[in-house]
Formats: sequence, structure tokens, C-alpha cells
Amino acid sequence: MKTSEMFAAHPRKLTMDVTAVTECISSLVECADVCTSCADACLGEDMVQNLTKCIRLNLDCADICQVTARVLSRQTEAVPQLLRTQLESCAVACRLCMQECEVHSEMHQHCRICRSSCQNCEKICQDLISRLSEGTRTTFL
Amino acid sequence: MKTSEMFAAHPRKLTMDVTAVTECISSLVECADVCTSCADACLGEDMVQNLTKCIRLNLDCADICQVTARVLSRQTEAVPQLLRTQLESCAVACRLCMQECEVHSEMHQHCRICRSSCQNCEKICQDLISRLSEGTRTTFL
Amino acid sequence: MKTSEMFAAHPRKLTMDVTAVTECISSLVECADVCTSCADACLGEDMVQNLTKCIRLNLDCADICQVTARVLSRQTEAVPQLLRTQLESCAVACRLCMQECEVHSEMHQHCRICRSSCQNCEKICQDLISRLSEGTRTTFL
Amino acid sequence: MKTSEMFAAHPRKLTMDVTAVTECISSLVECADVCTSCADACLGEDMVQNLTKCIRLNLDCADICQVTARVLSRQTEAVPQLLRTQLESCAVACRLCMQECEVHSEMHQHCRICRSSCQNCEKICQDLISRLSEGTRTTFL
Repeated sequence: MKTSEMFAAHPRKLTMDVTAVTECISSLVECADVCTSCADACLGEDMVQNLTKCIRLNLDCADICQVTARVLSRQTEAVPQLLRTQLESCAVACRLCMQECEVHSEMHQHCRICRSSCQNCEKICQDLISRLSEGTRTTFL
Repeated sequence: MKTSEMFAAHPRKLTMDVTAVTECISSLVECADVCTSCADACLGEDMVQNLTKCIRLNLDCADICQVTARVLSRQTEAVPQLLRTQLESCAVACRLCMQECEVHSEMHQHCRICRSSCQNCEKICQDLISRLSEGTRTTFL
Repeated sequence: MKTSEMFAAHPRKLTMDVTAVTECISSLVECADVCTSCADACLGEDMVQNLTKCIRLNLDCADICQVTARVLSRQTEAVPQLLRTQLESCAVACRLCMQECEVHSEMHQHCRICRSSCQNCEKICQDLISRLSEGTRTTFL
Repeated sequence: MKTSEMFAAHPRKLTMDVTAVTECISSLVECADVCTSCADACLGEDMVQNLTKCIRLNLDCADICQVTARVLSRQTEAVPQLLRTQLESCAVACRLCMQECEVHSEMHQHCRICRSSCQNCEKICQDLISRLSEGTRTTFL
């Protein structure tokens, strides 16, 4: 990804730690891609009937990760409160999707990969939420 | 919108009040559309320089409303916790966008319409959050 | 929808017939919403195994209609060539989704509604493509 | 990206060359990310007035690349005709965005990076269109 190069070329001073934001966007983009693929792979399985909850949560998680990545990518006039609530919702989406993929991970390799992407993405969202909360205390209050 | 017809044709029993969810999806879809247009109208103004915060929040609000509408439209294996956190983030996005459009609403008719859509959408999201919280207490705990 | 009010408030002169564009955006937004719901309703059916092609095309059609509506909503510095190719791809997505929903329309009311939305949306996209081609001949060449 | 691992774990036989599709998805995802950032960086520039066409095309290109990546990621019941028309529209979006970024590339590093991502992405979309046309001739007719 060229996310860090784009941040370096940005005219405004970033309000957050560049490395942390870049890592988070990268995890979100990967998780969105993996969840879209996992929904499609589940749909292609003979036992799709057993995977409907997984497909549903994959679709939600893909949509939410993708939008969260977009919101984080925008650094002009960023509002920390919105970044935080969107990251919190995204962390919930990742955790729910991870838990459901866990159920099918012995049976399906795509659920195993997706569980791992969601787990990683949730952790990185939580880390950025912590940083934003600290930032809010020191810089904005 | 044909949202209510589609819910009536859905094979699963809805976990929420159909009228409330339908109204919320309809507000989200309208607000996403209006915010996309407001960003574009701001971009076309001679004084775009004064409207950069408005454009940025329009883009975030359009993205978040659109995804929240999708998540709410999915009724198979819906998870109330995720609906709630996504609605909370959406309410924040609508409020911030409304506040910024308010600043420009004397000058620009598109900001006036957008302020009104965002205000309405935030209120309807908050109403649905209240219903979900009640539902969680009585049905899920 | 407030699409026409937003166009009336836009600072730039529209390059296309306002009524035609407004009608097209409205069809696209409705079709995207209906396709998202049809994918979810199919996923909730006992015979989901028979509906995997329908779900897949619903997801594609929802994504493509939503993005086509966004591109059309942007009137600042619009490029007719891009509007045309995106509308052409959208018309294909609507036709394929309509054909698959047709197969299931005796069995499922949600496929019947979705078939009708896709059919309508394809027609309206084709109409706008014709207008754009005329516009290109007279105005741009 | 874990795109290739997900394809390897997919239950259905892919209708296209895995390496080519994986490379295309990866370019599309990167280009969408870069275009979202370029729109935001342009919005943060003092001379945003001169960059309105660039912002508009960045937004279109980001939306279209993202959706094209999703459609390509879905391999269950893929329809070559839809992949082709969506890739064609995406190639147009990338070319237009590249041409506009070219205009600003001496002045702005973010436009320089974006021009290069768009140029690469257009080429890779065109390559995949060629492969799909061949595939259609030999396999589907």
C-alpha cells in the first residue's frame, strides 16, 4: 500500500501518529478484502445452509471495514470523536465476524484466514481507539 | 422505496419493529444521497476554500449512512449489538455534518437542505438506538 | 428523495436533463436497496442452496447501482464518457440480476420485486445512455 | 494482501487465471486507497480552487475501483460479461483520473503518486479485459 507515501505528501499536519494510522488502514483494507472473499467462498460451499450467519457477518464486516478505512484516510479537518465511534463499531464487527468464522475454521480454510484477519484488525482498531483517547485528553481538552 | 415490501417478503421473522427500521433505512438512504450532492455542490462553489470542512464531513456522512442502511437492511442473523454501535457512529456523523452545514446555511441552499436531512437522520437513528436498547433488555437478556 | 432539490441548489449548470438524471438516480438507489434486501432474504431461505447465483448477482448489482448513483450525483466537472461506461456496466448488472430473479420469481416474492426493480432500472439506464450519446454528438463533438 | 490465499481456499474452480485476477484486485484496492487520499490531500491544499476537477475524478475513481475489486473478488457464479463491462468502466475512470493528476503532478507529490497508481491500474484492467475476451472465445462460446 502507498498509504504512508500519501500521508507524507499531505499538505496538512496529521493529528495522529502516522505509523499507527497507516497500519490500521492497511489492516482494515485487508480485512475488508478477506471478508468479501470469505462471504463468496461460503456461498460456493455445498453446505452453504450452515454458513448463512457467517456470510451475513462477512458482508457487514467488509462494508464497515471499508468505510472505516476511508474515514481514517481523510486527514483534512478530521474529527477525533467520529474516528473513535466508527473504529468502535468496526471493532465490534470484526469481533463478531471472528467469532463466527472460529466456528467453521476446522472445516474451512477460508474461515480460518478470515478469523485471523478479523482478530488482527479488531486488535489494531482497539489500539488506535486508545491512542485517540489519549490524544483527546492531551491535545483537545 | 420498496423497503417495507421487501421486509414483508422476507422469510425470517424481523427482530425489530418493521415501521421503525423502514423509516430509518429511508432516512439513511436520503441522507447519504443529499450528503454526496452537498459535497459536490460545495466543490462547485467559487468559495470552495471556505467549504473544505463541509466537504470532508459530507463525504464521511455519505459513506457511513450508506453502510448503516446496508447493515440495517440485512435481517438474516442480525446482531443487535452491531446495529447499535453502527447507528451510534452514524448519529455522530450526522450531527457533525449538520453542525457544519448550519454554518453555511445562510449562504448556500444545498447546505440548508443537507443540514435538515442530517438533523432528521440523527434523530431517527437515536430513536432506533432507544428501541434496540429496550429490545435487548427484554428479549436478549 | 431530495435529489431534484439538490440539483436546483447546485452552483454549476447541469450538463444533462435534470428530470432524466434525477429519475435515474432514484431508480439506482431503489434498485441497490432492493438488491441488498433480496440477497439477505435469499440467504434466509431454507433452500439457500438454490439461490447462490441470485445472491451473488444481487450483491454485484447492489454495489454497482450504488456507485453509479454516486457518480451521476456528482455534477461538478462531469465527464460524459465515464457516465456512459458506468451506466453501461450498470445496465448489464441489472439485466443479469433480473434474469436470475426471474427464475425464482414464482417461488419467492422478494425475487419478484427485485426482478421488477432491476428491469425498471436497466431501462432507465439505457434511456440515459441514449441521451448522453445525443448530448455528446451535439454538444461535445 | 491475502487475496491469493483466499482464492486457493475457495471451493469453486476459478474461471480466470488466479495470478492475473489477484494482481488486478491488488492494483484496484491500492488505486482506490490512493485516490481517496489524493481527494483529501487536494482538499487540504491552499489552492483547492484549482483542484476541483482532480477531487471529483479522485472520488469517482476511488468508488469505481473499490466496487470493481469486490465484483472480481466474487468467484462463485461469476459472469464474464459483467466483469468485462465493469473493468472497462474502471479503466476509463483510471485514465481520466491519471490525466487530471498529470496536470498537477509537478506541483503536488500526492497527484504524482496518484497518477502512477491510476496508470498502473488502467493497464492491469486492460490486460484482464484481454484475457477475459480470449477466455470468452475459447471457453464460453
